[in-house]
Amino acid sequence: MCGCKRRYAMTCPPQLEPANFKPQKVLILTKLSRYEFEKRRHPELTERQLEKCLRMRGSDYNILLYHHYIHKGVENTVNSVFTAAGIETRVVYRFDYSDPNIEWADAIVTTGGDGTYLLAASRILDRNKPLIGFNSDPTRSKGQLCLPQKYSVDVKEAVEKLLKGKFRWTFRSRIRVTLIGENIFKPPVELHDQQLRYHEYRYLDLEPQLHTLQKDISPCSGIGVARRVLPVLALNEVFIGECVSARVSYMELGFDDVKGIKQKCSGFIASTGTGSTSWTYNINKLTEQNMEEILTIVKEETGFKIQDTDQYFVSKITEKFNQMLITDPEVSKMVYTIRDQLVSSPMRSECVKPRGFAKTISVKSRCFDASLVIDGGLSFTFNDGTRALLEIHDEDALRTVTLLGDSTEVSFKH
Amino acid sequence: MCGCKRRYAMTCPPQLEPANFKPQKVLILTKLSRYEFEKRRHPELTERQLEKCLRMRGSDYNILLYHHYIHKGVENTVNSVFTAAGIETRVVYRFDYSDPNIEWADAIVTTGGDGTYLLAASRILDRNKPLIGFNSDPTRSKGQLCLPQKYSVDVKEAVEKLLKGKFRWTFRSRIRVTLIGENIFKPPVELHDQQLRYHEYRYLDLEPQLHTLQKDISPCSGIGVARRVLPVLALNEVFIGECVSARVSYMELGFDDVKGIKQKCSGFIASTGTGSTSWTYNINKLTEQNMEEILTIVKEETGFKIQDTDQYFVSKITEKFNQMLITDPEVSKMVYTIRDQLVSSPMRSECVKPRGFAKTISVKSRCFDASLVIDGGLSFTFNDGTRALLEIHDEDALRTVTLLGDSTEVSFKH
Repeated sequence: MCGCKRRYAMTCPPQLEPANFKPQKVLILTKLSRYEFEKRRHPELTERQLEKCLRMRGSDYNILLYHHYIHKGVENTVNSVFTAAGIETRVVYRFDYSDPNIEWADAIVTTGGDGTYLLAASRILDRNKPLIGFNSDPTRSKGQLCLPQKYSVDVKEAVEKLLKGKFRWTFRSRIRVTLIGENIFKPPVELHDQQLRYHEYRYLDLEPQLHTLQKDISPCSGIGVARRVLPVLALNEVFIGECVSARVSYMELGFDDVKGIKQKCSGFIASTGTGSTSWTYNINKLTEQNMEEILTIVKEETGFKIQDTDQYFVSKITEKFNQMLITDPEVSKMVYTIRDQLVSSPMRSECVKPRGFAKTISVKSRCFDASLVIDGGLSFTFNDGTRALLEIHDEDALRTVTLLGDSTEVSFKH
Repeated sequence: MCGCKRRYAMTCPPQLEPANFKPQKVLILTKLSRYEFEKRRHPELTERQLEKCLRMRGSDYNILLYHHYIHKGVENTVNSVFTAAGIETRVVYRFDYSDPNIEWADAIVTTGGDGTYLLAASRILDRNKPLIGFNSDPTRSKGQLCLPQKYSVDVKEAVEKLLKGKFRWTFRSRIRVTLIGENIFKPPVELHDQQLRYHEYRYLDLEPQLHTLQKDISPCSGIGVARRVLPVLALNEVFIGECVSARVSYMELGFDDVKGIKQKCSGFIASTGTGSTSWTYNINKLTEQNMEEILTIVKEETGFKIQDTDQYFVSKITEKFNQMLITDPEVSKMVYTIRDQLVSSPMRSECVKPRGFAKTISVKSRCFDASLVIDGGLSFTFNDGTRALLEIHDEDALRTVTLLGDSTEVSFKH
């Protein structure tokens, strides 16, 4: 029977049943290593000059080169293993990760870390186009979205399992964003691409906007309210807030049936289950430092004696709390976080819970210079008056693989 | 005897002893109300058009006007009370808050909220120039840096106490920032001023930079390493991180004697005691929501029975924890926060405590497009290789007043 979960069983095309899955064309999106990045950044420099330049900035040329070769090693192995299996491949950097290339492929493969995987995912709108990630530097990054780290070494085994149908499909929920208001059709800024330019060029990314801004001069130009479903889906999270980190963000939030909640904060984050181990996790996780202090207060207040008050106990409680923050990548609800929720005065407990679940979220911008950012990559303008509708739809899920015979199955709170 | 605390007693000039304090010239820095802001933003619109424009963005013209009048009321009262006392005044907006005006005055007074107070403070480098804040809209903002709210109504009483020496000086510690590296002399961007422009103009703020960027093209231009003590002092906090909110920040941190701690996070914040009730508080505060869940886990794990498990108990523990985060504005150490500290994998406890105290902090940027922001206002470029040294010096403290006969004295953990 089909490897898809029940909710997809009806719609899973026969050629996508694991036993029948035989991709002919694979597009390999590979990461630009830091070494390659620095080379592109300073084309005028010789190797020795680059080494000197990096040393002056406190970076070690040799370490960069070392990790560059580890990455290239995995990239080349992945490419040759697929080729050896009679599969046509194309290897591209993000600059050439285009819709024609994506349409051409039966499956997308990434060699890099989670960043590369997220970039690949954001452009795959077809639920029938699978995405598989190889972690090209397990020594440095966990690569939670990629295949287990052992497959970075044993690429061949992974590809064999894939081609022999020894896997099940996993459908990671994603967030669909609909913008409502004026000036919602501006081209987004790619925050990663920006980093690949000299700093003094980064503002040029915004030029297309500067050209089309005439209609902004009066936000009251009386044009009817437009709607736009964004051409990308969020696999990790949607961040909404002032572009500039140090500014307070003002917004009106709505969760499912509750509407019009005014908030001041350092940004709002709506996360998927996949994203619940990422940024959202790092914002909400409790540290052992805090837990230790909390337990001390509880003891003072109650005189209650914990038998094992040692570090082990603190760690256990902390882990149990943090584990609670992680949700199943396949569930169709969002975890939201109101970051650094502003309470007008210390000691006053806030009315809205800064963390919770919702099936539908609406955000109205009260910001001056805000952005809506998908997976830390694509940044859309989101200024005063604009509304964003965030939803999860089954048909937007990302098709990924879980190879069988690995002990990577986890159970989650729903 | 002198109203200064001991550490200042030796250096307190006689004319600044509360009994002798008789300012002749007072500079009043007043806030630009949202109504005035919108008027400036849309000079082409009539009142009726503005009303329509605001309504289209979901803002209420009448409420804006209402708060504008409250603000103007306080501003005018403050001005006339000082004038009536035979003191010369000048009322300015932030655009005219210039060094000549500041030098001209014996004391600076603000009418607005904490934002206006912070802006005023940032430019006062002379420890003998007092700053006094009137909260011009107590109905909306707490104004923790301003005089107690009752003085927004009874301005006269406040000025009388001030001129009769019925106050003590309070010296709020501030953070001195020294930048070390290349390209540290770029003009900063004023984030508040930016908001007072049309969006399409905001990039013009950066033009001076774009002109002087020639030397950036190769960060390796071999110029010797320069030092620069920034011309502003931080009263609340110094934020360091990627300009763009949604980007991860990389940096190397040093606290007192511990050096070279590599971190990934959503920015680093060094706060004063004054700032410990502000952004730093909102980042670190524990919510009752979390406390409830923690106590539930503790009970599950220990089977321990709390007598009053009700909301009251949760609130009490939460408040006690949060109170712990607040430190004395006069102490000469910083509270630092590593925001959203990135842990490479869930469940793994981080090595560096994300929150703590330090007398000296050094930060080395590993960022691509980062800024160092003083009190959420002045933003300095702080890119890869640049170092910042953060220190608190007694001579940098801000001279403010605590009027006597108010029950505003609080005690703090040191």
